[in-house]
Amino acid sequence: MSKVVLAYSGGLDTSIIVKWLKEEYGYEVIAFAADVGQGPGELEGLEEKALATGASKVYIQDLRKEFVEEFAFPMLKSGAFYEKKYLLGTAIARPLIARAMVQVALEEGAGAVAHGATGKGNDQVRFELTVKALAPQLKIIAPWRSWKIRSRRDAIEYARKYNIPVPVTVEKPYSMDRNLWHISYEGGILEDPAREPLEDMFLLTRSPEQAPDKPATVEISFEKGIPVALNGTPTDSVTLLESLNQIAGENAIGRVDIVENRLVGMKSRGVYETPGGTLLYFAHSELEQLTLDRETMRYKEAVAIKYGEIIYYGLWYSPLRRALDAFIQSTQENVTGEIKLKLYRGNISVVSRRSPCSLYHPDLATFEEDELYNQADAGGFINLFGLPLQVEGLLRGTWKNEVERKK
Amino acid sequence: MSKVVLAYSGGLDTSIIVKWLKEEYGYEVIAFAADVGQGPGELEGLEEKALATGASKVYIQDLRKEFVEEFAFPMLKSGAFYEKKYLLGTAIARPLIARAMVQVALEEGAGAVAHGATGKGNDQVRFELTVKALAPQLKIIAPWRSWKIRSRRDAIEYARKYNIPVPVTVEKPYSMDRNLWHISYEGGILEDPAREPLEDMFLLTRSPEQAPDKPATVEISFEKGIPVALNGTPTDSVTLLESLNQIAGENAIGRVDIVENRLVGMKSRGVYETPGGTLLYFAHSELEQLTLDRETMRYKEAVAIKYGEIIYYGLWYSPLRRALDAFIQSTQENVTGEIKLKLYRGNISVVSRRSPCSLYHPDLATFEEDELYNQADAGGFINLFGLPLQVEGLLRGTWKNEVERKK
Amino acid sequence: MSKVVLAYSGGLDTSIIVKWLKEEYGYEVIAFAADVGQGPGELEGLEEKALATGASKVYIQDLRKEFVEEFAFPMLKSGAFYEKKYLLGTAIARPLIARAMVQVALEEGAGAVAHGATGKGNDQVRFELTVKALAPQLKIIAPWRSWKIRSRRDAIEYARKYNIPVPVTVEKPYSMDRNLWHISYEGGILEDPAREPLEDMFLLTRSPEQAPDKPATVEISFEKGIPVALNGTPTDSVTLLESLNQIAGENAIGRVDIVENRLVGMKSRGVYETPGGTLLYFAHSELEQLTLDRETMRYKEAVAIKYGEIIYYGLWYSPLRRALDAFIQSTQENVTGEIKLKLYRGNISVVSRRSPCSLYHPDLATFEEDELYNQADAGGFINLFGLPLQVEGLLRGTWKNEVERKK
Amino acid sequence: MSKVVLAYSGGLDTSIIVKWLKEEYGYEVIAFAADVGQGPGELEGLEEKALATGASKVYIQDLRKEFVEEFAFPMLKSGAFYEKKYLLGTAIARPLIARAMVQVALEEGAGAVAHGATGKGNDQVRFELTVKALAPQLKIIAPWRSWKIRSRRDAIEYARKYNIPVPVTVEKPYSMDRNLWHISYEGGILEDPAREPLEDMFLLTRSPEQAPDKPATVEISFEKGIPVALNGTPTDSVTLLESLNQIAGENAIGRVDIVENRLVGMKSRGVYETPGGTLLYFAHSELEQLTLDRETMRYKEAVAIKYGEIIYYGLWYSPLRRALDAFIQSTQENVTGEIKLKLYRGNISVVSRRSPCSLYHPDLATFEEDELYNQADAGGFINLFGLPLQVEGLLRGTWKNEVERKK
Repeated sequence: MSKVVLAYSGGLDTSIIVKWLKEEYGYEVIAFAADVGQGPGELEGLEEKALATGASKVYIQDLRKEFVEEFAFPMLKSGAFYEKKYLLGTAIARPLIARAMVQVALEEGAGAVAHGATGKGNDQVRFELTVKALAPQLKIIAPWRSWKIRSRRDAIEYARKYNIPVPVTVEKPYSMDRNLWHISYEGGILEDPAREPLEDMFLLTRSPEQAPDKPATVEISFEKGIPVALNGTPTDSVTLLESLNQIAGENAIGRVDIVENRLVGMKSRGVYETPGGTLLYFAHSELEQLTLDRETMRYKEAVAIKYGEIIYYGLWYSPLRRALDAFIQSTQENVTGEIKLKLYRGNISVVSRRSPCSLYHPDLATFEEDELYNQADAGGFINLFGLPLQVEGLLRGTWKNEVERKK
Repeated sequence: MSKVVLAYSGGLDTSIIVKWLKEEYGYEVIAFAADVGQGPGELEGLEEKALATGASKVYIQDLRKEFVEEFAFPMLKSGAFYEKKYLLGTAIARPLIARAMVQVALEEGAGAVAHGATGKGNDQVRFELTVKALAPQLKIIAPWRSWKIRSRRDAIEYARKYNIPVPVTVEKPYSMDRNLWHISYEGGILEDPAREPLEDMFLLTRSPEQAPDKPATVEISFEKGIPVALNGTPTDSVTLLESLNQIAGENAIGRVDIVENRLVGMKSRGVYETPGGTLLYFAHSELEQLTLDRETMRYKEAVAIKYGEIIYYGLWYSPLRRALDAFIQSTQENVTGEIKLKLYRGNISVVSRRSPCSLYHPDLATFEEDELYNQADAGGFINLFGLPLQVEGLLRGTWKNEVERKK
Repeated sequence: MSKVVLAYSGGLDTSIIVKWLKEEYGYEVIAFAADVGQGPGELEGLEEKALATGASKVYIQDLRKEFVEEFAFPMLKSGAFYEKKYLLGTAIARPLIARAMVQVALEEGAGAVAHGATGKGNDQVRFELTVKALAPQLKIIAPWRSWKIRSRRDAIEYARKYNIPVPVTVEKPYSMDRNLWHISYEGGILEDPAREPLEDMFLLTRSPEQAPDKPATVEISFEKGIPVALNGTPTDSVTLLESLNQIAGENAIGRVDIVENRLVGMKSRGVYETPGGTLLYFAHSELEQLTLDRETMRYKEAVAIKYGEIIYYGLWYSPLRRALDAFIQSTQENVTGEIKLKLYRGNISVVSRRSPCSLYHPDLATFEEDELYNQADAGGFINLFGLPLQVEGLLRGTWKNEVERKK
Repeated sequence: MSKVVLAYSGGLDTSIIVKWLKEEYGYEVIAFAADVGQGPGELEGLEEKALATGASKVYIQDLRKEFVEEFAFPMLKSGAFYEKKYLLGTAIARPLIARAMVQVALEEGAGAVAHGATGKGNDQVRFELTVKALAPQLKIIAPWRSWKIRSRRDAIEYARKYNIPVPVTVEKPYSMDRNLWHISYEGGILEDPAREPLEDMFLLTRSPEQAPDKPATVEISFEKGIPVALNGTPTDSVTLLESLNQIAGENAIGRVDIVENRLVGMKSRGVYETPGGTLLYFAHSELEQLTLDRETMRYKEAVAIKYGEIIYYGLWYSPLRRALDAFIQSTQENVTGEIKLKLYRGNISVVSRRSPCSLYHPDLATFEEDELYNQADAGGFINLFGLPLQVEGLLRGTWKNEVERKK
């Protein structure tokens, strides 16, 4: 009897998948769960539950440090968003979880991996692409794409048939995914883009209305693009992100409401809370504006669009991600310094920017004289910079064309 | 005696330039001022002042409608920022003002144009490139790059020498530029990036702390990317922008504090208020997410980076701007609909998005069955989408390489 | 009994598909063939053959003019290649053929369309995406992905069973696709990338060795990016392309041998002949270098990469292609003039470039004095253009860093 | 008396610059010349000549190895052209020569560097940006932008006045720049873009007409993107390039005739011979098509456009070039293998491509069955890939819109 490693959450879906894998394929099922910061209680009792449902073995791994350092921070350095707003919290955790499952599968000599992601979402892709890249020989099983269960009702019926305990908790009218970086909400009542999310949905952030009326401040120190200290105190990566989640959430920072384009071809509506991540992105960007030169900044803006797409599409373990990482890493050489932020009811503003590697040189910017910059040079600069426009104006009559265009 | 058209503001600098142009070149000086929404009082008494200072003729033109419709709205459709944050309010007004001056110069038979921009800033470039493109035969005079006056003190001395009235108002410890789209602040006490701007500097927006404690809502309607109605009422472009400035400013929307890269090579620090423009950008972007397909959105994100650079660099009257405009215009075909926003102490959130051209199709996104989407298709999709990663995994051992990389 | 429109070629595959569609679905089969310049004989007797094999009706349409003017020339204006070398001859014909089939299907009230493309190639995608975009309600049938026939042997057996005549011609050891723009060869003996194609495979071009030892010249005139005359004689689009195919093929122009990345995820090897198209691309690019400004040229280079991808991926009827077309169209405003080329044994060289819209201004380029360009301006230009490097050098010690990097 | 290091060629211009620097500034002049492969004779007698003309010291450095390995090969790996055709031979040598001069200046304690490039060309920029980046404290002197000499006649007069020997050789009717990578020709009779270059101008390549009538073959081996062997024999970088120049030149490979956009704002016409470099680019690109995945190839195509611009604009010592190099380096990890080429009268064709890292997997591409690829998957792939087009077709009526567009 061969083995399958299942991404197991303890919910109804993955519980019946344990049974189904045994019934359908005769597999020995190894349940796998990762702690990526889902929060207290989420992993409690999971082992017993999995064994009770029929798993032969259970792996529960604390991957929080890897998550922050090998995935979230490289993404932070890239400055990537998906479609301008989404901070990619679900997408960035998937390759890590899948990688850990691959490792278990290899160690256990399993022939397959399985997951409970639906056939309409992005997560199935992220999960499976990671497996294909890292262990192309493994079979991948996605029950939601192949079994006959089509709805929650079908699932409950299946559970009853096989004496699998059905959770008594009331179903949320939307689905959630939580880790140390964010919570996502989608589906159910959120599907109408002409409707605001209800306030009681949010778990990580207060609303601006309910946030304290006094501003908070926080200073984040970076070394080569990586956050290393809070308010001057060196802080390990996990604690740093947890602390920022706390203070940002308290001050109503980090909510995003978006209609986004899924990889599998349709638009969907998502609502996200990324409190600490939002602060980190803001601070990191401020520090880059101080320490990167113009041309690098400009090119990196375009790289960030691609990098965000790569993460969202599940292409983490691809040669292009590695090559873009090399680019990004090179740009971070001097992204070192401290950014102090003021947080107030959903607003972030900069109190101060400091860097030993700053390229900002106030003498140059001031309107008065300085040594380095001769204002007369600007005349020559403009003449050459504008020469193509001038030649076009002379040879083609740009003015005349503009006048005609307006008619 | 030949004529020069001078961009005239009535301040100390352009007042002495009137005199200097006459003394230095023997020009007849025609003063030109544009109303681009600098606000009440700015243009009052300007004509008398100019004539008193020695101008032979004065043009004051109301360009507010052109400004909004021919410059600000095309920029809005592009979604362009400069360096992720700056909404380009100063940059977008320059080609319009310079174009109007060119027209006056051509009508007056002038041989030159002049401006009071300094030799360290971007505005000299924007002004001069427009002139070079539209009227390459005109001579351009930039006194700050060629005269011997080097400081405010020198300027006052020059004014006294020639009996030019020196304004008695106290100098602001920073410089400002205002139009219907924004106010910019830079220089002086703002030059230290480790210092917050003082609260009393801001003219268009309240601070989040001082904004009302009750949220306001506003609904903006767009047709093919252009805002055409407020709260359901068709509104002309200038009034629409003024109204949005009012409500957004009241609710603390639209402040930006940035260290930016000037075209002339140095970093500088700018602070901006763009209340109505910020709302428009937000709403327009929400509507695009509903109505543009994924690939167009993604490409347009990159186009916006270039478009913002073009505006900032003063290249409005260039072939590339026209070609990008054609691209953008094509993308706006279906950007029609209503976005309702909630404003609260600096926060903008979406109350509802509606469009007759929406590509969001809730049946497709829901996790339940639908007609169009067969979940089993996702398996085939993933297999082909992931084939290159799988082949690489098979032929090169991606797993082994990852393990080695981590060592 | 409902109807299906089948892309019919008269070969073994589409012949048995006629039968299979009737057997499997009970469809009335309407055979469709387009003349896109496959060459003499290809369409001869097709109607009789189709009817004999069981088609109820046959459409044969001459689409050569549409092919050249609505597809090939817009692509020419874009300058698009796929993966630097492939001139996209097969890809660019597919949306046209599928569009014509959609039109027949709509007119005939058919409920489905079918094609004989295999499940491993790009053509299935191009065909089906066009149908999905233009007539999303139509069912699409791709027998090679669903029937049990797996090889040529199976196909012959099926034909014998149903008395479908099997062509007696010897199978070529590779597959071909021919139209007015090109011939492609792939598969079979070409699959080994370490093997040259055999000389007798090529139908449109001589080898450099067998080409005449005397150079030929040809002058192509363009108006707004479109070729309109040959050697000074206005020539209609189809004749122009045919004439260029003739002269270019005679002189060994236009062979390409490439390992390319298919959309469906694998690499494949293709060999192409595009004689006239190669000349047109070359001449058009020369004229652009004379008439486009630098920034437009640079941006258009990147647009061409995307445009080529869009064509290759079958996304012709997508909003992004339309938007990029608007961009491209704007750039072609001044791409008017004559390029005279010398052709000799596979080489193309420029004899002369002339354009009434040229931006080349010899006085500017010459090292001697001129009116427009003051060499002293270059000093100012370099100082400002180089300011960021200089500031970095001062603040960070670029020299020291370079020395350390080399260690 | 302080020192200046002068880029010295022994020609008339730099000879009178030696004198002029002493007369004008009282400098002690140190002449510097680099051997970057200008060819036999170019550096002969240079030391004596420089000393005779008034130089206090002469440096002649053999930089050929650095040129090929630190500059030409990284460029080769990038695949960069300037404006699609120019192989950047002059541009890529400038930062190396300027870097060597900076080193001499630092060792000699000189306060300035000087060069004889004109005020209209690109080389002044490349030279000076390198100096600004590496030694921002050095003064840069560009006599052609500041002295009163305006023409060759002036220069000869100046030489006669100071008894500087004027070369008796007949002036070529164009200017040249030669190194191991290429020769460039521009100016003079080449300035008319409607005129072919004369055959006797070319020094490195035969014309296709004069090349042998028998094809030659050559096999180039690469390791991680770097050419390391010829015809199976490991070959050092300089010898390898020299050998390829020989065989490619003999077979008429590597001529380019272009109208290009100079950085300083005007178009100019250049003719180039890059025989060995053309072969290397061709072979490297073939190997990349075999070993890079699709997405990396596509992104790298766009990177190459930027990389070419950076080199052409003289921005070698910029942070963006370093970051792009990191990207490129990462992509070359598997660019290892052998490409065998056939050369015949200006044509290059591929005889074979082999690589231990090939991602080409013939079983996948073949139309027959295979293990990895299930043709039925293509249906699911197309359905999801095409979903956005289908949704647009359904919701907006793409067909109707196309019909209307054509009217």
